[in-house]
Amino acid sequence: MSPAKSSHGNFFEDFRLDQEFVHAVPRTVSTGDTALYSALYGMRFPIQSSDAFATSVGLPCAPVDNLLLFHIVFGKTVPDISLNAIANLGYADCRFLGQVYPGESVTARSRVIGLRENANRKTGIVYVRSTGYDRNGRPVLTFVRWVMVAKRDIASPSAVASVPELPRIVSADSLLIDDSIDLCGYNWDLAGSPHAFEDYRVGEKIDHVDGMTIEEAEHQIATRLYQNTAKGHFDERLQRESRFGRRIVYGGHIMSLARSLSFNGLGNAAFVAAINGGRHVNAATAGDTIYCWSEIVDRQPVAGRTDLGALRIRTTVTKDVPFMQVLESDGDDAAVILLELDYWALLPARHASYE
Amino acid sequence: MSPAKSSHGNFFEDFRLDQEFVHAVPRTVSTGDTALYSALYGMRFPIQSSDAFATSVGLPCAPVDNLLLFHIVFGKTVPDISLNAIANLGYADCRFLGQVYPGESVTARSRVIGLRENANRKTGIVYVRSTGYDRNGRPVLTFVRWVMVAKRDIASPSAVASVPELPRIVSADSLLIDDSIDLCGYNWDLAGSPHAFEDYRVGEKIDHVDGMTIEEAEHQIATRLYQNTAKGHFDERLQRESRFGRRIVYGGHIMSLARSLSFNGLGNAAFVAAINGGRHVNAATAGDTIYCWSEIVDRQPVAGRTDLGALRIRTTVTKDVPFMQVLESDGDDAAVILLELDYWALLPARHASYE
Amino acid sequence: MSPAKSSHGNFFEDFRLDQEFVHAVPRTVSTGDTALYSALYGMRFPIQSSDAFATSVGLPCAPVDNLLLFHIVFGKTVPDISLNAIANLGYADCRFLGQVYPGESVTARSRVIGLRENANRKTGIVYVRSTGYDRNGRPVLTFVRWVMVAKRDIASPSAVASVPELPRIVSADSLLIDDSIDLCGYNWDLAGSPHAFEDYRVGEKIDHVDGMTIEEAEHQIATRLYQNTAKGHFDERLQRESRFGRRIVYGGHIMSLARSLSFNGLGNAAFVAAINGGRHVNAATAGDTIYCWSEIVDRQPVAGRTDLGALRIRTTVTKDVPFMQVLESDGDDAAVILLELDYWALLPARHASYE
Repeated sequence: MSPAKSSHGNFFEDFRLDQEFVHAVPRTVSTGDTALYSALYGMRFPIQSSDAFATSVGLPCAPVDNLLLFHIVFGKTVPDISLNAIANLGYADCRFLGQVYPGESVTARSRVIGLRENANRKTGIVYVRSTGYDRNGRPVLTFVRWVMVAKRDIASPSAVASVPELPRIVSADSLLIDDSIDLCGYNWDLAGSPHAFEDYRVGEKIDHVDGMTIEEAEHQIATRLYQNTAKGHFDERLQRESRFGRRIVYGGHIMSLARSLSFNGLGNAAFVAAINGGRHVNAATAGDTIYCWSEIVDRQPVAGRTDLGALRIRTTVTKDVPFMQVLESDGDDAAVILLELDYWALLPARHASYE
Repeated sequence: MSPAKSSHGNFFEDFRLDQEFVHAVPRTVSTGDTALYSALYGMRFPIQSSDAFATSVGLPCAPVDNLLLFHIVFGKTVPDISLNAIANLGYADCRFLGQVYPGESVTARSRVIGLRENANRKTGIVYVRSTGYDRNGRPVLTFVRWVMVAKRDIASPSAVASVPELPRIVSADSLLIDDSIDLCGYNWDLAGSPHAFEDYRVGEKIDHVDGMTIEEAEHQIATRLYQNTAKGHFDERLQRESRFGRRIVYGGHIMSLARSLSFNGLGNAAFVAAINGGRHVNAATAGDTIYCWSEIVDRQPVAGRTDLGALRIRTTVTKDVPFMQVLESDGDDAAVILLELDYWALLPARHASYE
Repeated sequence: MSPAKSSHGNFFEDFRLDQEFVHAVPRTVSTGDTALYSALYGMRFPIQSSDAFATSVGLPCAPVDNLLLFHIVFGKTVPDISLNAIANLGYADCRFLGQVYPGESVTARSRVIGLRENANRKTGIVYVRSTGYDRNGRPVLTFVRWVMVAKRDIASPSAVASVPELPRIVSADSLLIDDSIDLCGYNWDLAGSPHAFEDYRVGEKIDHVDGMTIEEAEHQIATRLYQNTAKGHFDERLQRESRFGRRIVYGGHIMSLARSLSFNGLGNAAFVAAINGGRHVNAATAGDTIYCWSEIVDRQPVAGRTDLGALRIRTTVTKDVPFMQVLESDGDDAAVILLELDYWALLPARHASYE
């Protein structure tokens, strides 16, 4: 046997500060991918669902959902960065830099921006900035994440610790939106939800009401759609020996389920413009029913735009306990929280509609 | 919390006679959607499967399967019409008005054409005519359905009852078929089935032989493909408290399974031209194995056409009991019937083939 | 009932030497199909994944994965050839004759090249050569397979036995590769794997490391994607009475799982050029976790090409036992082998890269 041909991924001592990774695998995102993505979550946001609706707001056709793009770029980083991750600790400063359309070929690169061995010397934290590129090398999204990675050898010498300073939130000033987009043409009737940017107030909480039960086949198909190779999602035999005892559902699948469920209450949150942070508090497993609610954390204009505004939204995802029940129990105690996702969404402003 | 932002759907007292709904969500149907649809059911009808075959009968490319179009339009009506439905009581007068091709953007509207409160005052029947439109506002299919909807408040005053007259069947005279279609070019060998319009006789029964076992992931993916938000298909926790005790499989998924299985015996039933009626007698659940058989109820020419004719077909779908076993038990007693679907299909006439 | 309308498939006595079958169903392979295929297995080979990468090696866009094409053509042969098969005994001389691109319409034909009744007179072996064609009638792949088929009537007279001579392996001389392909432009960094044709030696064994657990919904969706109607994959009720006691996973699904897993160790095995043979030793069932390893059996230049070479690879697929464990147990005893697949793959040669 030649173990050298197959990869077991990088361990903590394999990473160097400023190291650059050109990730496999280049990928063209097709309408086949967007259709499957939509059917895995039941997405209903109109700009991503309909070419005709997208055209009515200035786009050439329905763009690829930003979260699908995020999951695809994220997936590419897994074999190099997190195959031996014990935990995905966080995301920061995730910014979407422009719409991507079906037919686009995407690649991804990462740079190591921080390293810190843990006190137990068995693991360390790796910080990377990952960026996705279109066919012409133009960046389409960028984000930082940090993961706890196992060491191959506990005796390996420790690099000098270097922890990057990361923005706690993406500044509303830095949100980018394509010049071609003009939400004055937004058709509120067809979109199905009457609530405009102006209708949300800071501190408001929104119950997304509906629940969705997870199946093994669904999260596996989703994770493979993202070409994400994290073993914990696929290998039931291996997972039996893990602390979970079975395959886990985590990360992108939960984020997109929450995004889809949030349509009921945030139906005009047309674009995810940035992700301030995400905390996967617990893993789900097949059979869990996912619920979520959101809190409006901030509300900001977008520079140079009167047709839309930005809401900072914190969505909490739980399993098996809908929000009404959480409220009744006077706190979050009743809920097993899976994810807290803090993001900026762009919504059409009502006053800007054509008259 | 602001319950106002999220929707809990309409209750019986929310509907008004002649009320019009512009449904969310506009949707472009792509080859990604048709590929997934095909793979969920194993569709094999050649015109919808092959661009080359479709071209040979006069179409520009393989059209979107009429039932997929029906499910998509139906799905759009759910959040407004039937989110609080206790039962889908029936369909009538469903007519397909022209072929739709991948890339088409579809929208849907409904009008309330009847209302009748039930004697118990807890529920009422809502009758709607729903119509799907293409990008240019041309109607592509229309149908009536009626559902039993819960009242929010049993004390709400009752509207004056108004029950529409509905055609028991779609008249063969009113079946529409695109002028561009010419089934004289139909390649019987490639289609795989030798039986032409002329070969079926009224009263004939056809055993579709094969069975297919339903999985949770499959009906969920299908239902989300249709952007149908009916809770009973998705929320296992909620359904545990229902009379079913678990998620149910119902409606479109059963119809399309039956259509696919019917290829064995009705392989040249090229187009579903109209649905006269459908009765979902029982709900299925994951793990059930679906079988079906059909009876030829009527056989009619189509005005102005010699290349094809219309068969009225009544398909009975059962769970876990194939038709041979039903026959042996001398009646339907052995079978749990899920669906009785009464529709018009168009089949090529043999005599019209090019010579 | 008219049993004549539906088909129960051919039995051994229905086949005649030199008999030709034009198989249903013509099929256009879309990017929807390739996206779903990719997501069912997590394919990561770059030429099939990215239009931009495919263009960089001389192709117009990402071609359809050869194994997807094989499964689709195979699927078409099932209703005519193997609906009453008791066992798929083998494949031979499978050659891919040129790349196929999304949008291509595919058809298939088979010829009976051998027949031999078994001594028990209950079954016989049917040998067929099956060929897939593009829209213009150009053959795109061809293969021989032989299956054990039940007789309808044990008393039926036996045809004279005729067993074809089949090549044990496809000669490296006969491997075909499109003239337009030039792997000198192969981007090793983007492909993600540094190992070139020259880096593999005959006798080398490669552990593909990763495992994937099979779900019912996944293999059913895959098998329907191939329009393959073999009952054993779909009808749980029928299968309860079989020797397996439940639905089985077999054939194409296992082959493509192995191909996807083999990316870890054979990431530059860009094209499956030919299949020398395949032996489905055991059936898998949902819940099994699939592992595999490969042995390099031969290494040959390809006539007229310096940019690539051919490796003959024998991949062994097991369930629930990874290769490391097989090695430790000093033999294959520990493993339930599902499939042994012997194929030629084309890999870029390192020395030929542009300088």
